[in-house]
Parts: sequence; structure tokens; C-alpha cells
Amino acid sequence: MHIYQIIIEYDGTNFSGWQIQKKENSVQETIEKILTKILKVKIKLYGSGRTDSGVHAVGQSAHFASKLIINNTFVFLNSINFFLKKESIAILSLRKKKKNFHSRYSATKRKYKYIIINRIAPLSLDSNRAWHIKNKLNIDLMKRGAKLLLGTKDFSTFRSSSCNAKTPIKTLQEVDIKKKNNSIEIVFTSKSFLQQQVRSMVGCLKFVGEEKWSLKQFKDIINSKKRIKCAPPAPPCGLYLMKVLY
Amino acid sequence: MHIYQIIIEYDGTNFSGWQIQKKENSVQETIEKILTKILKVKIKLYGSGRTDSGVHAVGQSAHFASKLIINNTFVFLNSINFFLKKESIAILSLRKKKKNFHSRYSATKRKYKYIIINRIAPLSLDSNRAWHIKNKLNIDLMKRGAKLLLGTKDFSTFRSSSCNAKTPIKTLQEVDIKKKNNSIEIVFTSKSFLQQQVRSMVGCLKFVGEEKWSLKQFKDIINSKKRIKCAPPAPPCGLYLMKVLY
Repeated sequence: MHIYQIIIEYDGTNFSGWQIQKKENSVQETIEKILTKILKVKIKLYGSGRTDSGVHAVGQSAHFASKLIINNTFVFLNSINFFLKKESIAILSLRKKKKNFHSRYSATKRKYKYIIINRIAPLSLDSNRAWHIKNKLNIDLMKRGAKLLLGTKDFSTFRSSSCNAKTPIKTLQEVDIKKKNNSIEIVFTSKSFLQQQVRSMVGCLKFVGEEKWSLKQFKDIINSKKRIKCAPPAPPCGLYLMKVLY
Repeated sequence: MHIYQIIIEYDGTNFSGWQIQKKENSVQETIEKILTKILKVKIKLYGSGRTDSGVHAVGQSAHFASKLIINNTFVFLNSINFFLKKESIAILSLRKKKKNFHSRYSATKRKYKYIIINRIAPLSLDSNRAWHIKNKLNIDLMKRGAKLLLGTKDFSTFRSSSCNAKTPIKTLQEVDIKKKNNSIEIVFTSKSFLQQQVRSMVGCLKFVGEEKWSLKQFKDIINSKKRIKCAPPAPPCGLYLMKVLY
């Protein structure tokens, strides 16, 4: 068997998420079906991780095994993208990998970006592409709040009740907040994330930016390790899986 | 009568363009109807200029006259945006202007941006938001080609046959090309533009970037003042009216 990695971009708006679910249309299943059609044998696609319904990706990574050698990458990508065209999914690249490569278990870093548009007027061009927050956000407080999230700690506060990770202890390596006009972009880097961790952290940073919570309160909420203390998670439409590193 | 200026953002994808046309849904008419509804008297809205079907705006400027004084800008904007919500139009601001203000005739500069995504894979997140060009573009040649467009000249080569401007002589003040990863953004600044001028110039710059035309050929094509020599205009989905200055 040959192992192939694909890099995937998708508009998550009309998908039930990455992962195959009964009676729902997932990104994974949509691509699997087309791979199966093209390679004429049942293909199972393994992603680097799930993304929730409505979450986007510009660099999701996945792999599949195939008996067939894919010689002409260009033709292969063109034909898979041809079938995906109406699905808002694009396969950006295909690479042959070593036998022991696994899109999920070999990953060393994952990068997510969250986009907020901070203004009174509703979104038009960015609707379904960002979180619209009307209340003026204090970006300096958000930056200081973000620093409290860095490092190795128990992220139970930010963990969805349906998360099945073995441990809530993760290492957040980077949180970078940039503001340009009324657009705020927050980039998070970690080896891996708990379910809804990024959206939960962004929801809390919004409360910090709105000055609903002081930095001291936010610190206590992180340390409480209690899900109930967490702010409502940010909506999925502002979240982008940017890159998976190996 | 009191004169009010509004700044408008819209996703042009599902509109027939800015200008009112019989049996088509225009941005202008959509907003006029809602203003008329809110102010309870027939309102006529004057835009800074037309945008074609599919062209977007992040800063279209328009004005209207009203007998009523609009005292509470915040409430007024909220109610107009409430009615526009499902239309992919957002009114960003409202300002009372002097009696002699005219969104079109008082304008001193207009800024347009054109976005190209230069890659093999089709677009997903940016579909209807950018021009997808597969052929590798030579950005240095495009920059040098863009310089040939600068200044005061006869832009007949880039003028739609249905353009009714008094003269084809315009002054292009700025063309700025920036590349970031596979996204190319071209900003054009001029007091005013001929119909389809920006899209026509971008279509030609694509030919220069693809090395279909040498810089010498492009220069001759500009100087020919013949519409027939122009490359096919770039599609509307990549074009954004950014700002109108007064």
C-alpha cells in the first residue's frame, strides 16, 4: 500500500463538520466518495483532526492508503477537484509519504486562526467568514488575557463535555492577536487541541475584551478547570484550521 | 432638505449591479426601498458611481435628501441594517453633509482593489471573491506593465463600448500590486474611471503576467486606443470598490 497526504481547503458553512456522521454531509465523506470513484476501490480518508460544523480550513491535512501508484499528481488533482467543484472543497496538493505517516498521529503542531469583525454594522462580504461583535473590544486587554493561556496546563475550562481526549493537559505554544482596522485575527498554535478549545478560549477573550471579566477573574476561571465557568464558545464561522505541521 | 451621505458595503454576487435597472435587483433600488419605508417618503439615492453585476464594495458612497432630520444615527443605522440583513448589504455609516454635497460630482478620488488567486486548485472559500488564474503569473512583469498605465492619457483601449463618459482621457494616479502567498492584490486610484476600465486593465495585466504580451506590445496596445486590442476584461467577482474620497 502507498500512503498519500492531501492538503484540503474548505468552506465549512454547509458541512456538518469534517468527521463522517450518520445522515449528515461531512467533508471527510464527500472527499472519500470521490477518491473511491476515481481510484475505483473503497478509500478511507484519515484527517489530522475534526473540525466542527461551520468551521473552515485552508490547510486541513489528511491521508489515505492506495494499492495504485498515483503517477500524475497534476491530472489526479485536476480530476478530484473537478468532482469537488460544486462542494466548496479544494484539494491543494497531494504528496506520497512514508509508510508510517499518519495525518493525525504524526502531527507535531496545529495552527488555527480565529477572525472577529468588531463593528456596529452587520457583515455582508464576511458573513459566515467571521464573528461579528458589536461591543468595542479592548485589544490590549485581550492580548494580556491571551498570554495567560500560554504554556502547559489543564485546559478543562475550555473543553467540550463531549471531548474524548485522554487528558485535558495541553501545551499552548503561541497566541498571536493582530488588529487591522476593525478586523481582529487570533492565531493559536499547539501540538493538539481539546474539542472546542479554540472557540472556548476565543469566547473568554471576548469577555476580557468587553471588560466583562478582569484579567484576575480570567486567570481564576482558567485555573478553576470548570467548564461551567467558561464563556459561551465563539461561533464556528470565524474559525479556520490553517496548517498542520509534521 | 437635508443631505445625508451613507457608506455601503455589499457582496455583489447576487445583484445586477449598483444602478437601478428594469426587472433586475440592484443595490441602489434595494436600499432606496428600505430608506423609503423607514423615512415614510419616497427617497432617491445617488451613488458615487455604478458597479457592474457581481462587483463588490466595501466603501461605496451615496447620498440622499430628506425633509426629516435624522437625529439618532445609531438607531437609524440599526433599523436600516435590520431590513438589509438578508440582502448582503450593510450600511457602515451615515453623515449629515452640506447642501452642495454630491456623492458623484464632489468625489475627488476613487479607489478600487482587484484580487487574483494564482494557483492550480479551484477556489472554495474565495469563490465569488477573487479571480482564479491557474497560469503562473510573473509579478515583476505585471508591476512594470502597471507603471505604463499611470498618468493622464486616453484610455479608449480599456473603455466598454457602452460607456457614456464625455471623454476617454483620465488620470490614473496609482497602481499598486502586492503579492502574498498566491494572492495578488492590485489597487487602482483615479478621480474617476471609464466603464469597465479597471477590469479591462486587469485583463491586460494578466496577459502581461502570463507573458502572452511583452511590455512593448502592451505599451502599443495602450497607445492604440482601440478597444478591439484589449484583453478580455477580468471577471467582476474579483473587483471591490474600496473608497471614495472627497
